[in-house]
Amino acid sequence: MILKSIKARIKKMGMPAGVLINGTGTLPHQVQITVVDYNDTTIKEKVGATVQECQSYLKSPLNTWIHICGIHDKETIELIGNQFGLHPLLLEDIMTAGQRSKLDDYKDTLFFVTQTLTYNEENQHAEDEQVSIVLGKNFLISFVESNRDFFNPVRERLRNPQSRVRQRGTDYLCYALIDCIVDSYFLILEKVDAKIENLESELIKTPEPKTLQKIQHSKREITLLRKSVWPMREVISNFRRIESPLITDGTKLYLHDVYDHTIQAIDTIESFRDLTSGMLDIYLSNISQRMNEIMKVLTIVATIFVPLTFIASLYGMNFENIPEIHTHWGYYVVLGVMATIALCMLMFFRRKKWI
Amino acid sequence: MILKSIKARIKKMGMPAGVLINGTGTLPHQVQITVVDYNDTTIKEKVGATVQECQSYLKSPLNTWIHICGIHDKETIELIGNQFGLHPLLLEDIMTAGQRSKLDDYKDTLFFVTQTLTYNEENQHAEDEQVSIVLGKNFLISFVESNRDFFNPVRERLRNPQSRVRQRGTDYLCYALIDCIVDSYFLILEKVDAKIENLESELIKTPEPKTLQKIQHSKREITLLRKSVWPMREVISNFRRIESPLITDGTKLYLHDVYDHTIQAIDTIESFRDLTSGMLDIYLSNISQRMNEIMKVLTIVATIFVPLTFIASLYGMNFENIPEIHTHWGYYVVLGVMATIALCMLMFFRRKKWI
Amino acid sequence: MILKSIKARIKKMGMPAGVLINGTGTLPHQVQITVVDYNDTTIKEKVGATVQECQSYLKSPLNTWIHICGIHDKETIELIGNQFGLHPLLLEDIMTAGQRSKLDDYKDTLFFVTQTLTYNEENQHAEDEQVSIVLGKNFLISFVESNRDFFNPVRERLRNPQSRVRQRGTDYLCYALIDCIVDSYFLILEKVDAKIENLESELIKTPEPKTLQKIQHSKREITLLRKSVWPMREVISNFRRIESPLITDGTKLYLHDVYDHTIQAIDTIESFRDLTSGMLDIYLSNISQRMNEIMKVLTIVATIFVPLTFIASLYGMNFENIPEIHTHWGYYVVLGVMATIALCMLMFFRRKKWI
Amino acid sequence: MILKSIKARIKKMGMPAGVLINGTGTLPHQVQITVVDYNDTTIKEKVGATVQECQSYLKSPLNTWIHICGIHDKETIELIGNQFGLHPLLLEDIMTAGQRSKLDDYKDTLFFVTQTLTYNEENQHAEDEQVSIVLGKNFLISFVESNRDFFNPVRERLRNPQSRVRQRGTDYLCYALIDCIVDSYFLILEKVDAKIENLESELIKTPEPKTLQKIQHSKREITLLRKSVWPMREVISNFRRIESPLITDGTKLYLHDVYDHTIQAIDTIESFRDLTSGMLDIYLSNISQRMNEIMKVLTIVATIFVPLTFIASLYGMNFENIPEIHTHWGYYVVLGVMATIALCMLMFFRRKKWI
Amino acid sequence: MILKSIKARIKKMGMPAGVLINGTGTLPHQVQITVVDYNDTTIKEKVGATVQECQSYLKSPLNTWIHICGIHDKETIELIGNQFGLHPLLLEDIMTAGQRSKLDDYKDTLFFVTQTLTYNEENQHAEDEQVSIVLGKNFLISFVESNRDFFNPVRERLRNPQSRVRQRGTDYLCYALIDCIVDSYFLILEKVDAKIENLESELIKTPEPKTLQKIQHSKREITLLRKSVWPMREVISNFRRIESPLITDGTKLYLHDVYDHTIQAIDTIESFRDLTSGMLDIYLSNISQRMNEIMKVLTIVATIFVPLTFIASLYGMNFENIPEIHTHWGYYVVLGVMATIALCMLMFFRRKKWI
Repeated sequence: MILKSIKARIKKMGMPAGVLINGTGTLPHQVQITVVDYNDTTIKEKVGATVQECQSYLKSPLNTWIHICGIHDKETIELIGNQFGLHPLLLEDIMTAGQRSKLDDYKDTLFFVTQTLTYNEENQHAEDEQVSIVLGKNFLISFVESNRDFFNPVRERLRNPQSRVRQRGTDYLCYALIDCIVDSYFLILEKVDAKIENLESELIKTPEPKTLQKIQHSKREITLLRKSVWPMREVISNFRRIESPLITDGTKLYLHDVYDHTIQAIDTIESFRDLTSGMLDIYLSNISQRMNEIMKVLTIVATIFVPLTFIASLYGMNFENIPEIHTHWGYYVVLGVMATIALCMLMFFRRKKWI
Repeated sequence: MILKSIKARIKKMGMPAGVLINGTGTLPHQVQITVVDYNDTTIKEKVGATVQECQSYLKSPLNTWIHICGIHDKETIELIGNQFGLHPLLLEDIMTAGQRSKLDDYKDTLFFVTQTLTYNEENQHAEDEQVSIVLGKNFLISFVESNRDFFNPVRERLRNPQSRVRQRGTDYLCYALIDCIVDSYFLILEKVDAKIENLESELIKTPEPKTLQKIQHSKREITLLRKSVWPMREVISNFRRIESPLITDGTKLYLHDVYDHTIQAIDTIESFRDLTSGMLDIYLSNISQRMNEIMKVLTIVATIFVPLTFIASLYGMNFENIPEIHTHWGYYVVLGVMATIALCMLMFFRRKKWI
Repeated sequence: MILKSIKARIKKMGMPAGVLINGTGTLPHQVQITVVDYNDTTIKEKVGATVQECQSYLKSPLNTWIHICGIHDKETIELIGNQFGLHPLLLEDIMTAGQRSKLDDYKDTLFFVTQTLTYNEENQHAEDEQVSIVLGKNFLISFVESNRDFFNPVRERLRNPQSRVRQRGTDYLCYALIDCIVDSYFLILEKVDAKIENLESELIKTPEPKTLQKIQHSKREITLLRKSVWPMREVISNFRRIESPLITDGTKLYLHDVYDHTIQAIDTIESFRDLTSGMLDIYLSNISQRMNEIMKVLTIVATIFVPLTFIASLYGMNFENIPEIHTHWGYYVVLGVMATIALCMLMFFRRKKWI
Repeated sequence: MILKSIKARIKKMGMPAGVLINGTGTLPHQVQITVVDYNDTTIKEKVGATVQECQSYLKSPLNTWIHICGIHDKETIELIGNQFGLHPLLLEDIMTAGQRSKLDDYKDTLFFVTQTLTYNEENQHAEDEQVSIVLGKNFLISFVESNRDFFNPVRERLRNPQSRVRQRGTDYLCYALIDCIVDSYFLILEKVDAKIENLESELIKTPEPKTLQKIQHSKREITLLRKSVWPMREVISNFRRIESPLITDGTKLYLHDVYDHTIQAIDTIESFRDLTSGMLDIYLSNISQRMNEIMKVLTIVATIFVPLTFIASLYGMNFENIPEIHTHWGYYVVLGVMATIALCMLMFFRRKKWI
Repeated sequence: MILKSIKARIKKMGMPAGVLINGTGTLPHQVQITVVDYNDTTIKEKVGATVQECQSYLKSPLNTWIHICGIHDKETIELIGNQFGLHPLLLEDIMTAGQRSKLDDYKDTLFFVTQTLTYNEENQHAEDEQVSIVLGKNFLISFVESNRDFFNPVRERLRNPQSRVRQRGTDYLCYALIDCIVDSYFLILEKVDAKIENLESELIKTPEPKTLQKIQHSKREITLLRKSVWPMREVISNFRRIESPLITDGTKLYLHDVYDHTIQAIDTIESFRDLTSGMLDIYLSNISQRMNEIMKVLTIVATIFVPLTFIASLYGMNFENIPEIHTHWGYYVVLGVMATIALCMLMFFRRKKWI
């Protein structure tokens, strides 16, 4: 994760800003453009449109949502940029992976870039993917790399002529997409929450060295979440305060709502941070606790038998003149003495609450 | 606690904002509406009113307090929303559990949502429940889920025609309800304080592994408290600064007072945090202290008897030619030497302050 | 300390704000009112005045300082409140112990409440007591509970007709009282400083388990100090910035001076915090240091004698055919071997710098 | 690194500000001046120019970039200062190594100083070098000490008449140089990232005492990075907000872009900090884990054999009357008892999960 | 250090502000006044002037710098105060040691107080001394206690008629003195840096218990530095922003320069803090590392010899019927078994990487 942005940056080192290079995406799939042209009464959908077709849709008075899937290809992006009159810096941001969430105001368009999070069930950790949105007068262009369809719920709602998204402008569509992205955080939060719960019970029952690694792993996942959600919060806050004719007051009310959700996500993430910190304390304390117990057993066994062995050795000496060893009850007396010593020791330990 | 808000959010994923779904409440009790219609001279109370009856109360020039108990039922909430002209986002917030405290200004109404805290005596920890308040021109609607009656003290005061709450408008009633909620924090603080005091004496007398778990438990309870009280403070501060004709200057003075109480609660919570952090230090230091003591006993016993045993073994060897063992006083001399060594060791330990 | 404010709050739970109840003070002494009526030329003092007498003093054109000792009695406070036209919320704050320092502006009066600190020599820790001050046009009313006379130095100065406090208004008197309270912090700081110095030398010479408890105790005392001084600083800062005809610009200069003193007190407190944190580190490191030393002795003794004992045991075996034991010098050779082994070990330890 | 700025400062102690002294550079190479005079159509380059030649370039209406390599020589810098009318304080800053990044506005010129980072492959750590830039109406003067050519990529782009840097003023050139410097951070970040990755695998496989030193080393490198990047971020932010005719709005857009890059670098650095902190925890926990394992082996071996040895010693005593030793099966019974004890112990340890 | 300010404060407890008492200085030397009267053409110096002489200098149109050495004597300070019309609070601040750096604006004069730092070579730590400066229309009065001559470099420069300090007003002189004070920080920083470097190599080579004390000592010194430099930075920042006719814009540029130096000093101090924190971690980790090593030796020796000794004891038993002991090769077989066991153990340890 960390390196994605560094790599993208190093690749472009020494080049002027706004120059595009082919992306770092490893998915060599075709660029696919999906257009939805709609207003409150009519809707047209076209999957696999060309850039030229988009152009004609844009000119229609209807609201146009162009969704571009595949941002690794320099030529297509440049072509799109030229057709739609997008600033070179904006195009560069779209193609450079690992962007921090931000909102840039290019007067006639707003440019918004962020990272969505999806949970990869296979390797059990969260992955991020960049989403860029260009919001114009009555159009909205969204750019993603993979063909995972985050925005399907919005598409579904668009098909319903009663839905609010059909009756309002592209700024509301933009809000709906942002809402989609923020919702994705909660899915990840749920996964992390489950992991933490497992870790907690593991911690109490069977703490192992690899438990520590799991705790560290969770910590990093939470750090990744923070790095995604905090800038998002900032960006949505900017959306609400921006003085742009592209965002209506009605939509700002909804942005306020999604802003509340990011605050909620942040609160949850901070709680997770506290929890994992606490877990580290418990883990370390458990280890020293366990060591304590081992030490206690050693102490008790050694402290009891070392003096007894000494006594036994004493009467194993070969001195000619040891009167005791010739007495009839000597052996039994010594055994008695040993038993007494052992008992005293045990009582001492019991009193000290060591056993 | 953490998950409540996540669950509510995931359930609604992909739906447009403002669409209501049935709540997550597990209490399938009937929705119950209680209305109090009052001014400084007259008061009418009606338990178990219908939504239509509420409507007629609202139209009267008297102040109307509608208390709705049970927010899990989508249809009722929608009906209420339509009758009273409430915004869909507002209704959604009412029905979504785990909301962060906030104050939204919908021009003709103020919407306020927060979490009250009650102490569950059975499982010995704090529980939160959501309270939503809609404040209008001369009405106030409050929504809760359970039928625990937080607001009874206010209801009692309303029945007294001399009380200030009767002589002032619904903004003062709103203040009285907020005061009720803030008071509930202090009850929890007292419980937590008692727990911490117990923990402290337990820590000094008999620290056990489960003491650590109790400390961690207290820490989380305090975190929960913080998560409730901090946003509340913010919200009350907003109340005081809001430019709305619904809040009179006289009431703002009282809000200032309740604001001071939240500051006090926060101060106390921060003190608790310091205390529990200190307790963790003491606990860990106690454990290592105890281990020290165990080690000392082992060292003393082993270090004394290991050399003595060696000497005894020495004279247990079967060499033919060991002159000492044939002397008459050999045994006694060896015993004397052993005693001397043991004494020297003890004195060494004493000087080192190990015993 | 923490609980004082909680208790006061719980006692009043469910009651409307501004309703007075008898105080929690355990000192059942009589309420005592002392009046000083003064200007630059004349001064009248009356100990044990009645509320009615105060009233007449208030009406005189001279500056009037009414000092009320004993705030537990609801009736007296209510009477005073009525006579002097004080707001119910203000009276409630006076009677509720454990208030956080604050400055409230009631237009014609300023209300200021804070905690003084006194050092209880008996149980060796700092105690706080609440002081409330009402500052009006040409009067000042101060409320305390105990009859400890904090303000005696100010009284003394008042009796001197040359003193600045005689020549200026009640706002300067108010400043003089605040200065008195801030001075009390420095007395406590000196005590804490002495304690910390003792702790430091104890830490180096004879660290014991109870040293940790003392460190924790100091930490809490410092926390208490912080809780008193930080809000005080805020309040004095408010005093300086307040837009009220009751505070003249000349007095604001003096308030600036006392503000500097609180900053100084805060700096000192923060230094104390750093010191105690460092002490905890030293203490814990000392403990592990000490354990290290004990372990070293055990290791050296055991590691030397365990192999020697093994050799001795070897020749204690009863095998019939052990040729060495029949040789004339066998015993001496074995003794020599043992001595060599022991010496080698000692040299090994010396090289490792363990002894 | 730390000392560089202190040394420079101490050397100048007691002198008035703005007095120049010979630099601390240890590279006694000649001062070398390179001039590029350009506009969108023509470009002239001159390596090894004299100060007087620069003067004539400056007077031409073309944009002039003067790059001065070698800032240790007082006379040259003074001469340059006089010729170009630079403020003495500005010259002093150029010659004093270890400056914190800053932007000063001298009305007709902007002065910008910062530290570039280069990675020294030999001793494997990051090194910084100071770059000072004076931006005027249609000229830009850059000062560096070493002859490493950071700015070559910009020079290359200047030679291309189609490039944006040729078509815009010196403010864009200034941006291009800043972009160069910010790019250098990412190269270092990549190196540090590789180091951290190595450290992480080392930590899991073979933690050694020197691993800790490496972690500490990485920590310091990250601290150095922070010290360079944070002030840079501040300075670029100032650039964007500065009200100077020298910076056009078009260039501010590009500065916004490079600002985003510094934010990204800072995010990465903060992630590194988290990672290295986590590594310290893992390292320390690994050490105590390992000690635990060693203790376990000792405990098991000692606890099993100490009692057995005691029994053996018992029957090695020379008492005349020990009936057991005369029985035929005595020896075998004792062996059986010993084996039983050993087995019981092993089962006890197994049950405790110690083996 | 901490106590100096407390003591000064306690001594004055109960007194009105602005009343002077004799200082706490232990240097009973005479108060010595040095006057420099100068403009760009002429300069007069007088060592050992009287207060009356100063007065006449002040009336001259030249710039006058009065340097007063010795602030413990109440009468002199009061006399000076009266002659020069200084506010009582200002005089009190001059005489009260341990003031926090601050800048007060008394309309016709600016009052500035701070602490200089000097390094006492004897007891090897930094000491602070208070410097107060009163800046008026065309005069500047500086007050110090000791006769260490901090300001000599400025005096030297004054004697040079070409120097900038001669050609500008007393505000520039004031800047020059502040620059002198800030320079003194760097001398201390260099000393601390050397100490830290020594500590670091000591830490790696021969960590001892007293190393910890040295680390703690360095930490405190750094804390002292912070306490001096942070307020200074604030004060210089105030100087730059102050709206006073006493400070010209030209001088503000120089104050900006000295402000940069304090920032640099603060950066260095923060680096030192990081370094010492890291050193504590290394120290503690070294201790546990060392203990690990000791434990390992004990484990290896004990674990090898304890079983062997058991075997030897076994054949030392006196049972009549132990067949093995009568065989011819029994002894050698047992020796072989023992050697095998020891070898196996050593291989086990080697595989575990414990030796």
